[in-house]
Amino acid sequence: MSENFDVIIIGAGASGYSAAVYAARFNLKTIVIGKEKGGLLTLTHLVENWPGVVRASGLEIMQKLEEHVNDYKVPILVAEVKDIKKTKTGFEVKADSKTYKTKTIIYATGTKRKKLGIPGEERLFGKGVSYCATCDALFFKDRVVAVVGGSDSAAKEALLLSEYAKHVYIIYRREKIRAEPINIDRVNKNKKITIISNTNVKEIKGEQKVEKISLDKPYKGSKDFKIEGIFIEIGHLPQTELAKKLGARLNVGGEIVIDSMSRTNIHGFFAAGDVADSPFKQAITGAAQGVKAAFAANECITEKGCGYYKD
Amino acid sequence: MSENFDVIIIGAGASGYSAAVYAARFNLKTIVIGKEKGGLLTLTHLVENWPGVVRASGLEIMQKLEEHVNDYKVPILVAEVKDIKKTKTGFEVKADSKTYKTKTIIYATGTKRKKLGIPGEERLFGKGVSYCATCDALFFKDRVVAVVGGSDSAAKEALLLSEYAKHVYIIYRREKIRAEPINIDRVNKNKKITIISNTNVKEIKGEQKVEKISLDKPYKGSKDFKIEGIFIEIGHLPQTELAKKLGARLNVGGEIVIDSMSRTNIHGFFAAGDVADSPFKQAITGAAQGVKAAFAANECITEKGCGYYKD
Repeated sequence: MSENFDVIIIGAGASGYSAAVYAARFNLKTIVIGKEKGGLLTLTHLVENWPGVVRASGLEIMQKLEEHVNDYKVPILVAEVKDIKKTKTGFEVKADSKTYKTKTIIYATGTKRKKLGIPGEERLFGKGVSYCATCDALFFKDRVVAVVGGSDSAAKEALLLSEYAKHVYIIYRREKIRAEPINIDRVNKNKKITIISNTNVKEIKGEQKVEKISLDKPYKGSKDFKIEGIFIEIGHLPQTELAKKLGARLNVGGEIVIDSMSRTNIHGFFAAGDVADSPFKQAITGAAQGVKAAFAANECITEKGCGYYKD
Repeated sequence: MSENFDVIIIGAGASGYSAAVYAARFNLKTIVIGKEKGGLLTLTHLVENWPGVVRASGLEIMQKLEEHVNDYKVPILVAEVKDIKKTKTGFEVKADSKTYKTKTIIYATGTKRKKLGIPGEERLFGKGVSYCATCDALFFKDRVVAVVGGSDSAAKEALLLSEYAKHVYIIYRREKIRAEPINIDRVNKNKKITIISNTNVKEIKGEQKVEKISLDKPYKGSKDFKIEGIFIEIGHLPQTELAKKLGARLNVGGEIVIDSMSRTNIHGFFAAGDVADSPFKQAITGAAQGVKAAFAANECITEKGCGYYKD
């Protein structure tokens, strides 16, 4: 048995949900399939840049988006997509031990976290090694922690951690962190945060839990550095495995190349959000890409045919 | 005397406001200058497609966006921009009898309404001729009105009017209206709405107020058609005058050509929203273009220099 859809949206983040709202408005038979509900934004403690929302948690914003999808009665299936096959009339998507047939796909799978790949990182994961301050900050009340990375996300993680921890060290391999200016200001003004620049972490040490880290150059006279928690925030990798297998064109950064209407090089296959090739990835820009993908999918299914991506 | 800005945002709609939030987050000295606050969305009765907001009036959404801009203390000047001049280091913007200097401009002026250009249209404006059902629907309680046009906006105007009027005729020059399917369904199910297709309005007649219209073909045996209100919703023209004078490249539809980061062919001059060349114009896509324009303006002002639009 298989079910037939006009569009299957893979990924249940801001881009996928926004695509779902519009796909439903276009009267397309739609399903969202995502590994988990909510996407990356859910893990963001404080969102101040979703236009129209002065200040909210990422979770709150995603709950509102989910409510919007529910209002259009688009089903959200929590399952991992195992395979996508191109067929004559569209695609077959395997998830949850079932096969779903669809005319088009909107691929909005987002990214997964990069790892440092150093000794101790894997062994001590969940024992002081974390990739999510929003999830774990509370466990580090009055402790000394480190954030590895220099991005805006790293700065925000450090700011959040400073509300709980005794002190937060940002360890960054380059000279200057490259967060949004508003967050750089906040970091600089925060007495509980210290930046250690031009430095790499070489190893994470500890028996049952993180006890110290080794740096590649001495800080205050020693390469060994006592901490109880280490938050790794060194970027994300686009989750393109299935798209790649299908033949989607990727850029040098491994992101799916889309045109201004979220079309890829594959007929009927659209991409949106962090998995796609935009130099500036925001929830709002991903949402707009999802919306445009729904429009393009509708054009593809109805009167206008599917336009191919043009090189 | 003149004031110096990093970015002047021309236009106070969803795109301009979203650009303002991000420009402020980039620590750019920013001002929004708009003829009126709120833009096109303000005139939309019911918005169901701003992701994360199940249902609200356009005014409510714009108020939230304005609140967001205010939260970042970006001034919003209500004034008409009279002229823009390119200078060696940026631009000079004339508005409100003052000259404002700026390094970059985000041009988000939106569109203005198209007119039919038929006898009686101008003379009877405000006397039964309207371009805004949201503004004027209440005046037509229990009266017979017509909506001219076949777009999604026209369908939504008719649906809104049907809540007040005795009957609503949609008069459209083509065979089938091309609204969103969800709105076509609503129109078809609404007993107070009748579509007259393949028909044009040639004249609006009446002494002190609209009394009847002349059609180019008979409806129920007569070309003269008694109505008390006529709502003209036949599309919008991009407001590009000043951009055009500055040398901005336009497409055949008269819209400003932008690349995927809202850059135009003019160094330091960005465009976003309904004035720019997207085949699918939504508040959310315009907002994302504004956000990307703020990012590109920041790149232009800071480390990376201004990239030109590439043909």
